[in-house]
Amino acid sequence: MQFVASEHPHRRLNPLNGQWVLVCPHRTQRPWSGQQEKAQKNELPEFDPTNPLCPGVTRPNGIQTPEYESTYVFENDFPALVEVVPVPPNSDDPLFQIAPARGNCRVMCFHPKSNLTLPTMSAAEIVVVIDEWISQFNELSAKYAWVQIFENKGAAMGCSNPHPHCQIWSCSFLPTEPQLKQERLRAYYATNERPMLADYVERELQRQERIVIENRDWVVVVPFWATWPFETMLISRNNNKRINDLTVEQRYNLALTMKELTTKYDNLFQCSFPYSMGWHGAPTGPEHAHASSAHWTLHAIYYPPLLRSASVRKFMVGFELLAMAQRDLTSEQAAQRLREVDGKCHYLEK
Amino acid sequence: MQFVASEHPHRRLNPLNGQWVLVCPHRTQRPWSGQQEKAQKNELPEFDPTNPLCPGVTRPNGIQTPEYESTYVFENDFPALVEVVPVPPNSDDPLFQIAPARGNCRVMCFHPKSNLTLPTMSAAEIVVVIDEWISQFNELSAKYAWVQIFENKGAAMGCSNPHPHCQIWSCSFLPTEPQLKQERLRAYYATNERPMLADYVERELQRQERIVIENRDWVVVVPFWATWPFETMLISRNNNKRINDLTVEQRYNLALTMKELTTKYDNLFQCSFPYSMGWHGAPTGPEHAHASSAHWTLHAIYYPPLLRSASVRKFMVGFELLAMAQRDLTSEQAAQRLREVDGKCHYLEK
Ligand SMILES: O=P(O)(O)O[C@H]1O[C@H](CO)[C@@H](O)[C@H](O)[C@H]1O
Ligand SMILES: O=P(O)(O)O[C@H]1O[C@H](CO)[C@@H](O)[C@H](O)[C@H]1O
Repeated sequence: MQFVASEHPHRRLNPLNGQWVLVCPHRTQRPWSGQQEKAQKNELPEFDPTNPLCPGVTRPNGIQTPEYESTYVFENDFPALVEVVPVPPNSDDPLFQIAPARGNCRVMCFHPKSNLTLPTMSAAEIVVVIDEWISQFNELSAKYAWVQIFENKGAAMGCSNPHPHCQIWSCSFLPTEPQLKQERLRAYYATNERPMLADYVERELQRQERIVIENRDWVVVVPFWATWPFETMLISRNNNKRINDLTVEQRYNLALTMKELTTKYDNLFQCSFPYSMGWHGAPTGPEHAHASSAHWTLHAIYYPPLLRSASVRKFMVGFELLAMAQRDLTSEQAAQRLREVDGKCHYLEK
Repeated sequence: MQFVASEHPHRRLNPLNGQWVLVCPHRTQRPWSGQQEKAQKNELPEFDPTNPLCPGVTRPNGIQTPEYESTYVFENDFPALVEVVPVPPNSDDPLFQIAPARGNCRVMCFHPKSNLTLPTMSAAEIVVVIDEWISQFNELSAKYAWVQIFENKGAAMGCSNPHPHCQIWSCSFLPTEPQLKQERLRAYYATNERPMLADYVERELQRQERIVIENRDWVVVVPFWATWPFETMLISRNNNKRINDLTVEQRYNLALTMKELTTKYDNLFQCSFPYSMGWHGAPTGPEHAHASSAHWTLHAIYYPPLLRSASVRKFMVGFELLAMAQRDLTSEQAAQRLREVDGKCHYLEK
């Protein structure tokens, strides 16, 4: 019998973290009588006087959100990380290792209107978001080793407020995922004298099996090693290292690419598609300012949980937590569906 | 200012996988207007004629589930892994690495009655479950490198059938988590000439800060490096290496310990507490049969998602997916609450 990737269970290696993913193409056929997600309907009011992220509303701590007109950034009222914090005592016991963690946490509203999302915002409005990301990154990267810009969208991804917003958590240290990536990108560069993701994009463009969107500045691909059902990477084609080295044209093309990708996501199951997404680029802060970033390529990663419909998600539980990542369809199958679904006209506008 | 673990953000190292966890003790105070879990009510009928896991019911594939009276094991109708599968072609491109995956997937019903769960079963009935785990393990471990016994309990943990059951996925290879553990336990043993978890249990018993249950054969502890809010490890005190080397007394004590722990879980938020749990021990199969397992200690891990109540869970999203694991209360706080809650009498019996 010959091996057919879309039929036979197999493993694929994620070269960015060195971990294997178990791919089980036929599992999507199984009946589902488990938890159903509530499909996120776009039925929010434009303004909700009880939502602290809306312009003019007073937050629980008494501070009033200003009457902002584009984006609005403020310090998280319940930050995971704070700037000034005592250093834990040293321990020489390898089983009880503790280390300092300084940083800060900001919330960034994308738009004054509660009933918009990135796919339903205009490209010009998305450019404003990107510009704000860059100005935040400029400020925070001067001080911190890692500035994690991320968006949790939808209740299924733990988003606790439906107003369009993202978060920016800055860390005095390199967290696990970027640390692993840093090591592996560096090792690849040492051997190949090319950034890993530049080589990867080149080969994906040749193969055309997993590409979802391509334009002059950006490529969206379902990575060969994707874990989440419709996971994608949005990768710079211009050897960008960090979000703040994008040109004006690259930013505008990024806005178009993000709008197209998220429109495809929404159209796939005709719902406001939940996901977590975030940016990865070369580390920052005084510690990394003078280190080479030649091995890095700026990219965003989208982790959407939906698997079969607006209401059936993939759970990362049991086997996944105890043994290894596992997916129920191949990257090629996911890419084909995302490629074929309309990315120009949002289903709500049809 | 002096460092106080229950107040100040910090990081802790998980020595079993080498990854740091960000601990942010004050985050639980933040308001929650996100997704609410449906608290799992124990309102199922004893027998559901439409549930394929119930005795006598015909499964979708036409096979009838027998009129079983204790446990019942069958091959998963939609297995992630199968025994006979073609081997993928070799690739020498480091960015497109693919590897074979053989194995099998079984479902194991704990009890004929749908409306029972481990905490509401008797210790004698739980012993039957443990004995069946062992007989499955005996058979499967002869052939496979890793036999992952795991239970997904509750809709919040992706369980698609409420009948009390677990799964057993066997793999021809060592998955990511056990592979990492294998390496780190081995390295610790090489340096210290003691199994890491034996040392760990000893120190936790001295400190008494994170212990939830202790008896002659078993210890339940919220690990110093726990990620999930009420995560626990149930660790053998007898230098057991695999589940099939437990004595009859150790099995009986295990049943009592599991019943006590899951009763505490249920009583904590007065609901049928969801979790994923599973067993880790020395690898198996022809490949590992003659290797030393001296560095291993048999243990189970419980990953429950609930954070603040029966309806508010911890989401492993955004920052967690893109950067690193993060928890909202300390292990010591979780351990104290689990220690104090009643583990003898289930809230439904009160
Ligand atoms: O096999 P089940 O119960 O249908 O499925 C559940 O457990 C599996 C193993 O952890 C996961 O891969 C699935 O995402 C989850 O829904
Ligand atoms: O900060 P939020 O939106 O309240 O919280 C959400 O995002 C955080 C960062 O990914 C997670 O730690 C929380 O579990 C999630 O619910």
